[in-house]
Amino acid sequence: MTYCVGLLLKDGIVCLSDTRTNAGLDNISTYRKMFTFTEPGERVILIMTAGSLSVTQTTLARLDEAASDIEATPNTSIMLAPTILQVAEIVGRTLAETSQEVASRMGSNASSASASMILAGQRKDGDMRMFLIYPEGNFIEATADTPYLQIGEHKYGKPILDRVVTPETSLTDAKKAVLLSMDSTLRSNLSVGMPLDLAVIERDALAISQQRRIEAQDPSFAAMSRSWSDALRDAFTKIEV
Amino acid sequence: MTYCVGLLLKDGIVCLSDTRTNAGLDNISTYRKMFTFTEPGERVILIMTAGSLSVTQTTLARLDEAASDIEATPNTSIMLAPTILQVAEIVGRTLAETSQEVASRMGSNASSASASMILAGQRKDGDMRMFLIYPEGNFIEATADTPYLQIGEHKYGKPILDRVVTPETSLTDAKKAVLLSMDSTLRSNLSVGMPLDLAVIERDALAISQQRRIEAQDPSFAAMSRSWSDALRDAFTKIEV
Repeated sequence: MTYCVGLLLKDGIVCLSDTRTNAGLDNISTYRKMFTFTEPGERVILIMTAGSLSVTQTTLARLDEAASDIEATPNTSIMLAPTILQVAEIVGRTLAETSQEVASRMGSNASSASASMILAGQRKDGDMRMFLIYPEGNFIEATADTPYLQIGEHKYGKPILDRVVTPETSLTDAKKAVLLSMDSTLRSNLSVGMPLDLAVIERDALAISQQRRIEAQDPSFAAMSRSWSDALRDAFTKIEV
Repeated sequence: MTYCVGLLLKDGIVCLSDTRTNAGLDNISTYRKMFTFTEPGERVILIMTAGSLSVTQTTLARLDEAASDIEATPNTSIMLAPTILQVAEIVGRTLAETSQEVASRMGSNASSASASMILAGQRKDGDMRMFLIYPEGNFIEATADTPYLQIGEHKYGKPILDRVVTPETSLTDAKKAVLLSMDSTLRSNLSVGMPLDLAVIERDALAISQQRRIEAQDPSFAAMSRSWSDALRDAFTKIEV
């Protein structure tokens, strides 16, 4: 499994993904699930993936190839599409086509040829937008009412987001929120694993403002995880039934 | 959906269930999902249910009928079975038979004729035991390593249990833990709803030691829920990334 979460806030976009991929419990690997496409000052696009690795890798490779094609058009290249909505349509179409191709080769296992994606980005003079793209290529968009989107193993990490995230949340608090949401997921589900990829896109920066890989032995993540556990246990002790 | 959780601790058993049942979003009702069978001083049995209401109600009705049957034997009556393990076998068998009967009438919807149960109890001179009974009638048992069992919408409320519950947890802390676990679930999932049923079986009491229905407007639950939110937000503010 996977856990990826993206927040769409007044001040920018914050995304976090894990890197664990497994095809059975004895075949666990680390694969990046966060991909960025930028033309600084013109557009910034970030994609996170969950689901069949063969589907997500092929989809990303095709998006990349289409974007580098000298005959690319705004209909085929996510780097030329005039809006992030149209980028979402290209990504959705490519994902659905790839899923169908892979599924058609898989017979009775076809249902496992499925993947979903979170797409976030901004184009010059456009708004920041964030979409959750379903395996069939359709999508939903983050709004002020629901400023976050999750894919993969999303339930363990949802309570903390429900409690602390609003569109006004600062980018610093947002980083904390996604890391704590991931921390709860890591503790409760073995199939989500370190290292993590964290990225921040500030409003109107039209570039990746911060990007960081957090390794398993990262001291600041470990310290945060410990303080959060201690704080929770402390809060738990003080609550009266 | 449903959320039921049971803790098996050194000092006793603590169980909590919600009461929301829905057959589609426009058909939501309140049904008890916690059932007790006691012969004080001899045996105490508590059953919580999740899944198809028609399956769980019929299963419980049959268990009840078999227990009152004047021709009941230790093989058919949960009130005569010599051990809680054998009670689990009777419950599992009745559940599996009922599921199959209902499924056989449902054609292509057969997969929705499914239910699972948590069974907890103690017999005189026996240990306290707790089982999770699957739709097929097989079961797993809570142990010192994993002192809690959950059925229904279990993921939202798992992180808090993973952090605070051990077999040494006191009954007071255990009540707090299951209520906070339920609180996280209620906030993140609409299909789990108040009122709640809470029960405590103290070790060797061979009776239900405490039982309480917590209504939606219960002031102490609301206060606990608010303090927990405040404590979490406060802890969140203090954590450094």
